[in-house]
Amino acid sequence: MTSSRPATGFPAEPSAVPPPEDGEPEPRARRRPGGRTARIRTRVLDAVRAELVERGYDELTVDTVAARAGVHRTTVYRRWRDVGGLLADVFDAAGDDDWRPQDTGSLQGDLAALNHEIQAALTAQPPVTAALIAASFRSEEAARALQRFWEDRYARCETVVRRAARRGEIPPHTDARRLLVAATAPLYHQLLLLRTPPDPHLPDRVAASTALAASAGAFAEPAPRDGD
Amino acid sequence: MTSSRPATGFPAEPSAVPPPEDGEPEPRARRRPGGRTARIRTRVLDAVRAELVERGYDELTVDTVAARAGVHRTTVYRRWRDVGGLLADVFDAAGDDDWRPQDTGSLQGDLAALNHEIQAALTAQPPVTAALIAASFRSEEAARALQRFWEDRYARCETVVRRAARRGEIPPHTDARRLLVAATAPLYHQLLLLRTPPDPHLPDRVAASTALAASAGAFAEPAPRDGD
Repeated sequence: MTSSRPATGFPAEPSAVPPPEDGEPEPRARRRPGGRTARIRTRVLDAVRAELVERGYDELTVDTVAARAGVHRTTVYRRWRDVGGLLADVFDAAGDDDWRPQDTGSLQGDLAALNHEIQAALTAQPPVTAALIAASFRSEEAARALQRFWEDRYARCETVVRRAARRGEIPPHTDARRLLVAATAPLYHQLLLLRTPPDPHLPDRVAASTALAASAGAFAEPAPRDGD
Repeated sequence: MTSSRPATGFPAEPSAVPPPEDGEPEPRARRRPGGRTARIRTRVLDAVRAELVERGYDELTVDTVAARAGVHRTTVYRRWRDVGGLLADVFDAAGDDDWRPQDTGSLQGDLAALNHEIQAALTAQPPVTAALIAASFRSEEAARALQRFWEDRYARCETVVRRAARRGEIPPHTDARRLLVAATAPLYHQLLLLRTPPDPHLPDRVAASTALAASAGAFAEPAPRDGD
């Protein structure tokens, strides 16, 4: 990973570090690549995440975000328009990284590593990822951005399935997306919808059962016919 | 099914029929078992669902629900206290039925039938179930009630797994809950979180891959040791 950001989850969130106090000059150590525009974006999106987890969606306004970020409110209105625009940009920024799934040498290992990242993101304190996903039920614009983010993450993960097929662990015509959804959906289901307490064994268990299912051909497509 | 309610999904919602106009006498055909208290509950919870899908959570108040149900507002405040109490009772009422998973004679058939019910509920118009699940992200009380509802539904579904084990389709020490979550989580994930357009083949595909995984031992627990 060459990114300047902390390790990202799936869904990733670039940073939950509180932004500097209103008006305070940004400390040198927090500088990130890019010019003034990029720095303002970082401060504003950090403020969105911090306000969301500390005060909740109902208190989230362009003005509170601007104040926390130490950025003039007209700048925020011009660039992000409203709360939906701010949340959507948090998801867009989260996807703008060089995250790749780990290559552990086996399908089960790769899926377990992925699931540990997901579980870590969904159970992190402060609960930034969980709050962002909950907020996506409030704003159509945020929902579409989260959809794009996940689409991109699942697409990046397809390499995990291709590697397993090359190693002969699973049938060659395995549907990568179905396998990846099967491997990850139970974590989201348990933690976000069923709201069961986090089980430290869950990431490994779901990875193991999905890898076994895949090797048994559970996600295999019929072989393409001649001429397809 | 001996219930007077329409077919229930998973999650079920008893009825999305609009309640009678304010003050209008309840037509004989809509009478349900139970006395006046039960009838008031039915009218109030019907009004909660209708207001939720038509006007959204933000417009949902005890007063709008009482007006729509044609029930005095003090009755609603006394019995349900607030919007969280109303939503929680919608989930509690949904679970108060005689729903049982279908017995089709095979694990794959039973899981497919279950998944078709889930997909029907999550894609229904008006989107009562989807709106109720979204509302559970707004109210702790509603979230706990939804958790109880799902816990009860999954517990009722364990018979599907026990039947499959008795038929010898899957190993005897199969973890029923893990199998059922694997069989259902992808539908919730695709439809509620990833928001992919409904795929009519998804319920059958997920049922088939989960049944194959289960028969390969993907959800098998180690056999109990002597003395366990």
